[in-house]
Amino acid sequence: MAYDGVETPHGKVDRMLGGACTYISLAASYFTHTQIVGVVGDDFAPEDVDLLASRNIDLAGLERVPGKTFFWQGVYSADMNDRTTLRTDLNVFADFQPKLPASYRGAHYLMLGNIQPALQRQVRGQMDGPHFVGGDTMNYWIADFRADLLATIREWNFLLINDTEARMLSGENNLRRAAAAIQAMGPKTLVIKRGEYGAILFHGESYFMVPGYLLDEVFDPTGAGDCFAGGFIGYLAGQGVGADHGVIHEPELRRAVIYGSVMGSFACERFGVDRFRSLTRAEIDGRFQEFKHSTDF
Amino acid sequence: MAYDGVETPHGKVDRMLGGACTYISLAASYFTHTQIVGVVGDDFAPEDVDLLASRNIDLAGLERVPGKTFFWQGVYSADMNDRTTLRTDLNVFADFQPKLPASYRGAHYLMLGNIQPALQRQVRGQMDGPHFVGGDTMNYWIADFRADLLATIREWNFLLINDTEARMLSGENNLRRAAAAIQAMGPKTLVIKRGEYGAILFHGESYFMVPGYLLDEVFDPTGAGDCFAGGFIGYLAGQGVGADHGVIHEPELRRAVIYGSVMGSFACERFGVDRFRSLTRAEIDGRFQEFKHSTDF
Repeated sequence: MAYDGVETPHGKVDRMLGGACTYISLAASYFTHTQIVGVVGDDFAPEDVDLLASRNIDLAGLERVPGKTFFWQGVYSADMNDRTTLRTDLNVFADFQPKLPASYRGAHYLMLGNIQPALQRQVRGQMDGPHFVGGDTMNYWIADFRADLLATIREWNFLLINDTEARMLSGENNLRRAAAAIQAMGPKTLVIKRGEYGAILFHGESYFMVPGYLLDEVFDPTGAGDCFAGGFIGYLAGQGVGADHGVIHEPELRRAVIYGSVMGSFACERFGVDRFRSLTRAEIDGRFQEFKHSTDF
Repeated sequence: MAYDGVETPHGKVDRMLGGACTYISLAASYFTHTQIVGVVGDDFAPEDVDLLASRNIDLAGLERVPGKTFFWQGVYSADMNDRTTLRTDLNVFADFQPKLPASYRGAHYLMLGNIQPALQRQVRGQMDGPHFVGGDTMNYWIADFRADLLATIREWNFLLINDTEARMLSGENNLRRAAAAIQAMGPKTLVIKRGEYGAILFHGESYFMVPGYLLDEVFDPTGAGDCFAGGFIGYLAGQGVGADHGVIHEPELRRAVIYGSVMGSFACERFGVDRFRSLTRAEIDGRFQEFKHSTDF
């Protein structure tokens, strides 16, 4: 959970609701009942709580502690394919020890946001035995917490990372080889995200490629990768995919990747979480059909 | 028609057969009877003529003049997404005035390689009235021969260019807007190539996206874009698409884009034209099916 300050070629917002947990849960909430675990400071605004609650997101695991909410500030390049971090204040996030409410422990799906691998493992350890577990990570953990990260993802069913991270984690430049190396580390299902160029799903021996949605205008890419993750896991959970002890069917996984792409594309259409204030399930399904129409041959 | 000196992370070849006409015709020859117009010097090797002849390419329009064949030398970056030109010797290409043999004039399909727009127009003018005409261009003509280029593409049914060129030609950064602006210049069918990230077909109001093929190893990307063009126009010609005075059906255009992608991917598997020494139509159709399988949902 975070506040973000973001500047893109389309404008500048000094402080707005953000954070991986926020984006993932907002996106997932269109597909399934969503429960979050996160921490905010005493500056966290009532209207931001209201937005999450309006999407029926379970906030039992939202911890509020004295101090300030995590803050990130960044500026995007002209084509928005790169961004520079100007400021990161960990604030209350620095001492965060995620605690799962008892009511969450029997959940079948677990999506672990990008935090220390040891904390991700610890969260998983608090559950009764979810059927489908995975998450995200980043360059920092790959480079400096490698052993920890490897021990963590060994237990995962899926990993969602971007192409640069996949190359870094595997030591392979070629994405097919990178994917094979990462699957051998544990997660049999791997999604490599490629920003505006789409994503690739590797599942067992098979692969599936989806191009990025062609937006008329990208206002702010912040949170697009997290919304992809939310759409992906939210769709699978909503369908009950893998609830049969991890047996997942590839056609469902492919649709989950499309719903992930759809949610990521909507996130870019407004600043921050603004698109989620009006987005409807009918719009989501309409864009799913547009993906179908624009890739079918 | 050219000789190329190419260095990639996989090796270095000082001099090998190359040139847009060579790549386009080799790729197209798997789908249709192909006739070329081009110029070479008296250094053009018999074995290079033999390779083209072995693919039943009609060489009536291959002019041989005293002097040296066009020569290009370049080196690719580590990820092969960029290349630096080290040397360009126009040689016999400098005074090239394409002349169509009488036997070519009734052809229904015309693919104009990347030369001066005025010469492209002049070649088209030598034909009886092809039903489906288009071609390629590059940054140099877009920047310094704009009026000429606009007069040329106004008469085209299709244009194949890369994303950077599309942005430059249209003045629009967003690809949807760039495509609309270019379609308004003449070509109702536009293919924007994105290198390893695939291609987008814009046709009338519709669009179709194909991701790039995931190669195990890219040896040499030289000629991949030209092989895309050869597969695209070759497939359409082989099917007789548009022979009904330019009426083309989108499902066939989409398949043409896939065959273009397939031919471009094979080109990268060996240095220069080497992959075409052994490539079979069965391998081509096998990869077409792999595209289908890896994008279907």
